[in-house]
Amino acid sequence: MRFVLHLVREGPDRMSELAAALSEVVANARLCDRCFGLADAADTCDICVDPSREGATLCIVEGIGDLLALEATGQYRGRYFVLHRLLSPLKGIGPEELHLGTLHRRIKDEGIVEVVLGTPLTTDGETTATYIGRILASENVRVTRLAAGVPVGGAIEYLDRMTLTRAFQDRKDA
Amino acid sequence: MRFVLHLVREGPDRMSELAAALSEVVANARLCDRCFGLADAADTCDICVDPSREGATLCIVEGIGDLLALEATGQYRGRYFVLHRLLSPLKGIGPEELHLGTLHRRIKDEGIVEVVLGTPLTTDGETTATYIGRILASENVRVTRLAAGVPVGGAIEYLDRMTLTRAFQDRKDA
Repeated sequence: MRFVLHLVREGPDRMSELAAALSEVVANARLCDRCFGLADAADTCDICVDPSREGATLCIVEGIGDLLALEATGQYRGRYFVLHRLLSPLKGIGPEELHLGTLHRRIKDEGIVEVVLGTPLTTDGETTATYIGRILASENVRVTRLAAGVPVGGAIEYLDRMTLTRAFQDRKDA
Repeated sequence: MRFVLHLVREGPDRMSELAAALSEVVANARLCDRCFGLADAADTCDICVDPSREGATLCIVEGIGDLLALEATGQYRGRYFVLHRLLSPLKGIGPEELHLGTLHRRIKDEGIVEVVLGTPLTTDGETTATYIGRILASENVRVTRLAAGVPVGGAIEYLDRMTLTRAFQDRKDA
């Protein structure tokens, strides 16, 4: 409702512009055929074809939003693999929906040395990470997982028990 | 204001009860002479005198709230050392306000083997952890730090950059 009222207030020109922009997105945006991230008017996305990325590292994330968040850190220079869903017995999502065939192929073809499991620390995210970690055990790759712990800048006092437990269990030498 | 209105509504009996309870707290509550946590009608707190606690581990926290949060996890079985303040050049809080003499004495007297730095991952918390880590380098103890990373149950997409950066840098073998 707020969106429609805003459009009405903006007038017909603005609406035409938006309609044209949306048509362009429909025409051009698609999922990258390698990482299933967002490709713009090409079959393969900019990150997958960028020769300056570290080709031997692959980070597996749930969604494109997670990919963008990792890109925003500026820390990760490898490539991605976007699942678009997590394993979920409750929702009936099984391994066949995770296009893992493409993952296996990429690990071989691109000479991947490390796979970072970047799924969230939820039940489904952990299940998916554990499953993928297990099926990759037979491949010759190092499999790593994002660290769990205390968020930067946050108070210890108000942290949930599970996170504080992980932060304590995974404590590191200072 | 809300508190006072609530008291007025509760009536005079309730207020007398509260006054008596507060007087009792004033009379009995004090800081433990060993860990500076909360002691109840004794010089030393229950945790410090409990023989079932792991005496060789000491966790340094900023406040009593942090101590209670760690106790709530049920994971930590060692003892504590409560700073009540963090080093802060901006607020003019220097090392002499952290009663580190007591800390040194406890490490020696109690045969401490591991000191867990449990200060928050804020600027002051990290400064304090680094400082204490450095002054303990000459002692024969292992110094560890709570893990930084993704909170349990949270989305990756909406994590702040600093936390996601730490979660990536500190990734562990799956």
